[in-house]
Amino acid sequence: MVSAASTIANNQPVRLGMVGGGQGAFIGAVHRMAARLDGHYTLVAGALSSDPERARASAEELGLAPDRSYGSYEEMAAKEAAREDGIEAVSIVTPNHVHYPAAKVFLEAGVHVICDKPLTSSLKDARQLAETVDKSGRLFVLTHNYSGYPMIRHARQMVAEGALGDIILVQAEYPQDWLAEPIEQTGQKQASWRTDPARSGAGGAIGDIGTHAYQLASFVTGLKAESLAADLHSFVDGRQLDDNAHIMLRFAGGRAKGTIWVSQVAPGNENGLKLRVYGTKGGIEWVQADPNYLWFTPLGEPRRLITRGGAGAGDAAARVTRIPGGHPEGYLEAFATLYTEAAAMIRARRDGSALPDLPLPTVHDGVDGMRFIAACVASSRADSAWTRLDAV
Amino acid sequence: MVSAASTIANNQPVRLGMVGGGQGAFIGAVHRMAARLDGHYTLVAGALSSDPERARASAEELGLAPDRSYGSYEEMAAKEAAREDGIEAVSIVTPNHVHYPAAKVFLEAGVHVICDKPLTSSLKDARQLAETVDKSGRLFVLTHNYSGYPMIRHARQMVAEGALGDIILVQAEYPQDWLAEPIEQTGQKQASWRTDPARSGAGGAIGDIGTHAYQLASFVTGLKAESLAADLHSFVDGRQLDDNAHIMLRFAGGRAKGTIWVSQVAPGNENGLKLRVYGTKGGIEWVQADPNYLWFTPLGEPRRLITRGGAGAGDAAARVTRIPGGHPEGYLEAFATLYTEAAAMIRARRDGSALPDLPLPTVHDGVDGMRFIAACVASSRADSAWTRLDAV
Amino acid sequence: MVSAASTIANNQPVRLGMVGGGQGAFIGAVHRMAARLDGHYTLVAGALSSDPERARASAEELGLAPDRSYGSYEEMAAKEAAREDGIEAVSIVTPNHVHYPAAKVFLEAGVHVICDKPLTSSLKDARQLAETVDKSGRLFVLTHNYSGYPMIRHARQMVAEGALGDIILVQAEYPQDWLAEPIEQTGQKQASWRTDPARSGAGGAIGDIGTHAYQLASFVTGLKAESLAADLHSFVDGRQLDDNAHIMLRFAGGRAKGTIWVSQVAPGNENGLKLRVYGTKGGIEWVQADPNYLWFTPLGEPRRLITRGGAGAGDAAARVTRIPGGHPEGYLEAFATLYTEAAAMIRARRDGSALPDLPLPTVHDGVDGMRFIAACVASSRADSAWTRLDAV
Amino acid sequence: MVSAASTIANNQPVRLGMVGGGQGAFIGAVHRMAARLDGHYTLVAGALSSDPERARASAEELGLAPDRSYGSYEEMAAKEAAREDGIEAVSIVTPNHVHYPAAKVFLEAGVHVICDKPLTSSLKDARQLAETVDKSGRLFVLTHNYSGYPMIRHARQMVAEGALGDIILVQAEYPQDWLAEPIEQTGQKQASWRTDPARSGAGGAIGDIGTHAYQLASFVTGLKAESLAADLHSFVDGRQLDDNAHIMLRFAGGRAKGTIWVSQVAPGNENGLKLRVYGTKGGIEWVQADPNYLWFTPLGEPRRLITRGGAGAGDAAARVTRIPGGHPEGYLEAFATLYTEAAAMIRARRDGSALPDLPLPTVHDGVDGMRFIAACVASSRADSAWTRLDAV
Repeated sequence: MVSAASTIANNQPVRLGMVGGGQGAFIGAVHRMAARLDGHYTLVAGALSSDPERARASAEELGLAPDRSYGSYEEMAAKEAAREDGIEAVSIVTPNHVHYPAAKVFLEAGVHVICDKPLTSSLKDARQLAETVDKSGRLFVLTHNYSGYPMIRHARQMVAEGALGDIILVQAEYPQDWLAEPIEQTGQKQASWRTDPARSGAGGAIGDIGTHAYQLASFVTGLKAESLAADLHSFVDGRQLDDNAHIMLRFAGGRAKGTIWVSQVAPGNENGLKLRVYGTKGGIEWVQADPNYLWFTPLGEPRRLITRGGAGAGDAAARVTRIPGGHPEGYLEAFATLYTEAAAMIRARRDGSALPDLPLPTVHDGVDGMRFIAACVASSRADSAWTRLDAV
Repeated sequence: MVSAASTIANNQPVRLGMVGGGQGAFIGAVHRMAARLDGHYTLVAGALSSDPERARASAEELGLAPDRSYGSYEEMAAKEAAREDGIEAVSIVTPNHVHYPAAKVFLEAGVHVICDKPLTSSLKDARQLAETVDKSGRLFVLTHNYSGYPMIRHARQMVAEGALGDIILVQAEYPQDWLAEPIEQTGQKQASWRTDPARSGAGGAIGDIGTHAYQLASFVTGLKAESLAADLHSFVDGRQLDDNAHIMLRFAGGRAKGTIWVSQVAPGNENGLKLRVYGTKGGIEWVQADPNYLWFTPLGEPRRLITRGGAGAGDAAARVTRIPGGHPEGYLEAFATLYTEAAAMIRARRDGSALPDLPLPTVHDGVDGMRFIAACVASSRADSAWTRLDAV
Repeated sequence: MVSAASTIANNQPVRLGMVGGGQGAFIGAVHRMAARLDGHYTLVAGALSSDPERARASAEELGLAPDRSYGSYEEMAAKEAAREDGIEAVSIVTPNHVHYPAAKVFLEAGVHVICDKPLTSSLKDARQLAETVDKSGRLFVLTHNYSGYPMIRHARQMVAEGALGDIILVQAEYPQDWLAEPIEQTGQKQASWRTDPARSGAGGAIGDIGTHAYQLASFVTGLKAESLAADLHSFVDGRQLDDNAHIMLRFAGGRAKGTIWVSQVAPGNENGLKLRVYGTKGGIEWVQADPNYLWFTPLGEPRRLITRGGAGAGDAAARVTRIPGGHPEGYLEAFATLYTEAAAMIRARRDGSALPDLPLPTVHDGVDGMRFIAACVASSRADSAWTRLDAV
Repeated sequence: MVSAASTIANNQPVRLGMVGGGQGAFIGAVHRMAARLDGHYTLVAGALSSDPERARASAEELGLAPDRSYGSYEEMAAKEAAREDGIEAVSIVTPNHVHYPAAKVFLEAGVHVICDKPLTSSLKDARQLAETVDKSGRLFVLTHNYSGYPMIRHARQMVAEGALGDIILVQAEYPQDWLAEPIEQTGQKQASWRTDPARSGAGGAIGDIGTHAYQLASFVTGLKAESLAADLHSFVDGRQLDDNAHIMLRFAGGRAKGTIWVSQVAPGNENGLKLRVYGTKGGIEWVQADPNYLWFTPLGEPRRLITRGGAGAGDAAARVTRIPGGHPEGYLEAFATLYTEAAAMIRARRDGSALPDLPLPTVHDGVDGMRFIAACVASSRADSAWTRLDAV
């Protein structure tokens, strides 16, 4: 039952650095737990905060050697590249606008990059980052962590194998409620940068969580949106970026349609990512808060509840399953799966072997996400006109 | 616990006739059970089918006197109006295109009308029917039966009392799967007329179930849509009317937005009507298949599950609750509530007393539903342009 | 989809009387709704209350002719038996201690009996009633209403067809919370008689709801308990009868074991009847509060959710299904199914045709229930010693 | 939101050894993931298997230095105790019968012990181990991992604070299905030792999972069972130990009663641990498979769903919560919480500071679990006679 994911030889863990993720941050701590769970990484360096005192205190708490706690990512990239035992990979867990410049210096220093989403704070940056990655020959992994869930992997396998027939409908939603009040005006750190166009980019909720929903829908179905019609809105007075979005979608290369609803102002929704996909022969339903379950609804038969680790789960799920059915895995495990798969890639590079075929989100998926944001903004400004994603 | 609804004196049940609902029909049998449950009606006459043999056999099965089984609704209206003991009310349960002409003759004959939805097969008919009703002085009840559920009544009360704050979001959906295959081509009776523009009108799924979703959203929130943007589609080859619709909404008289998704081709969805309403202070969620539960999600507090007959249910729910919490009531009970409330109105007319204040759907709600259909069709034809409901 | 149950010719409805069920009663109103739903009965006579004024007012409210509202069931039996158009059947909906004497006079007057559960207030009465029924040649139906649910009928069919393999485990529970406080001391009518040994019998919760749980388990599995070990308790000070019971069971004719937990003092449980049955090849789970669903869990395969009216439901369920899947039926529909099946039996007697083979609970099932109560009481008094049901 | 649990300074991780847990084992890998997640341990030594080749291969895979992969736990204890950088703690993850001898040598060598459950394979061993622990002055943590779940910590806090009133009922169950067939006869490793009295002890399912259920019930309520009546059974032919148990309980120091059902032969149950506790003022319900939710059912109020990381969760839960509500934590996180709390204890010992007050299961809880097993076996042999736990 314990899969390869957790038993890959870890006698040479990947030497990892981190940019961002100092005390008070949320996602940095998540990345560190994800990196630790399967034992494939050692965190050895960091530029953990732009505030020097916080950077130092954070590094000490994490047990970093003082000389590997850096004041800036530029310094970190330069000095680590010069060390024999320098970092092999870096996790970038800053606000969005730092992703591109930070990734650039590490890629150019020969360091693989694991980067939080959305890819950047502008589509222009995203395109340049993609070019930089392609030129660098380094690995770039975008942590669309929800694609690491075993039942999502199984859903993807089912669609690919035709269990649903031709896909016709993709219904995604991602409601939250943590921005229902103007907490960014009270200095709440997470809220402040996410509602600030300078740091977040043109998208508020659509960037923060809409890109997750869109990536997940694409990941499972293999479909890209051709065009969309969006109605973005800020329900909280004074908020500069959207905190709710209604989006209709038409997918390329087929006849599928769909919708995405994202909200950060819907009371009672903690983190309500949900995906439903329907084809001519059946449907699937998955809810992130209860991630060990996948409903399969074949047309004309009783609904079936497939469980992680259970009899109905296939190979793709099994490869990323750590413990038996009924012993729930969660958010951190799915996140850790991306890290573990990234480690497998990094090790392949290390010893020159062939890259394993793993469905990790790439920089190009990140560009797709930025196109999604740009198209949402453009459509909404044009009174929800249908807008092609390749035209933004 | 047993409410007034079931204990109103029924020593003078309402004399009821029925148009449509012969053998093989679905909704006619539902209306009859709904009329019987609380004991306020006696079915005494019918024009049950346009097929004379089926009409006769159906009437016999239902125990109607042979001389009160009519060959046409016109004949029925004329003869019943002439009887001392003629019907006081008629239930019209035919395909949509018959609603208007049938209702007209009964209203003009002085008979109250209980009519299935959608109101008519065209907005023009709907407007004329509304005029006819207003002129007639007779009662007209449109059986948007989902508004009879106790937890929907409670949701409406909560919104009205401000428990949710200002309403900002209305997310409704109504997926089914029974038309996932082209069963209308096999002669299936329910499917045949619902997919035929001549009998159904301009709307397929949006008429059959979209009007339910829209009515329910309006009923609970008290809001009407100002404009909408719709993307209608027929996924089944050769189908003339929409079997799936994605609709974005902007509501009048406030800042609320929303979406409605309706589908009859989404495998695994039997009758998935679901309503979520969010305000600045809290939200509610209700699922028709599990109608005895209402989630209330006050911002910043644990979710609460309010149950029909339970401690959290208020007056509006209690008035239409028959049995204690944990003893589930279902679809027929909600339907019966409309009939019982209609009986209370009819009796008030009978003895000249003041009409009770009951939230029964009216002919004007029916016109709103037809506007909704027309706006969906118009918007979809205009590539999902925002379309005002008062402009169709 | 609308089954035979609701379309049996009702041009000669069964003439029904009622004993008990006056204003303020709960179960009497339920019986009346159940009798009305499918249109097979006309309530024409009653001895609705032992309080003459309440009896008169109740009869008026129900539209009974004044001369058929009786002061006692003895009078009613005598006078109705003497009428040409006298009642064919009587519903007995009184406290338990009245069931036997009332049923006796009606049976001896040639009237079929529909009786609420538990059968009587003592095992001795139960045995005498069974003899009386057998001698009378009249029909006797015990309203273990939960056995009328379509998904329970389907569960029974699945067990009978071997879908679960050999049955090994039967886990039933029936928690409620309405007696968590000593409301019988405040004069609450339902609580008063149910906690009074003189009217209720030797069992409190085990009689009121434990017999339902036991009957349901037997109904679905076809198994009878051979012996049981029980721990009964009254958690509320001053209460004379059990309000909680833990019961271990060993079933006859096989190797199955099981437990029943019943409680009326478990906060948060409205009416939590739940049944789980496991065999060597699979299991089933059913929860009364959500009665339209039946889980089927075949060993080594994904769980399947069978729905009333859905693709997985078989013949036995279909026969008692009124409306399509996703349109929930509830408690009253299940209750009505017993009435409708009873009507089919009564009509068969009326015209001398063969009795249909319908799984209606009989007087002998009622005796089994009284044995269950007696064995629980005896075992508990003997410090939970295993006690044979055929030894009490 | 990220709690102290994950941010305790980890610059001096605890040096950890492991006994058992070689390739093919289940629970050893779980302990290692649990030890890694929060970064407070470094695994540096092991006696991973009694099979030398498997031990070596396992150690290499885990990156242990070859000279710290030992052939026996005795050798490991001796050699590690002699090293300056020897292990501070050892995880014992062998079959039950090895727990006592292995723990003894490490405790006597001055090494803290983290041990899987049940404590030993006999009550006698358990008592001797408790004495050994008490004499040793070393820490001993028993990994009843389910007590590490945040919502279980919250439940415990609620009971302690009186939110439920006086506890009257404790309903626990733990059904599984993985032993529904005689897989031990096919050589399945997990099944083989668990069904073998020599390695598992006198209890089968009651030892493997029954002790979890009993510990959890005690942990949440603070109540110990005074006596119990049990019916143990092996449904699978040829199985020597119980695979199903029905247990009735009476708790000490109060008036509470309860039941525990454990099964490993109930198809469809993967790992169905469920706990319900009812008091005079309210109840709670928790299901292990969905561990981020806790139902709170105050008498006479709507049910409330408290979520990990949500508004209703209190201090005790917050202390062991890593990520926000809606981002599910699972089995490994709960397990990791025990490890992280153990690390806090070990570090306190390391630097001589006061031991933090943490609710970790102790060796005495382990003795209680062994008493529970012994009492179940004794009662079942005495035809389910009530048996005191302090009399075995």
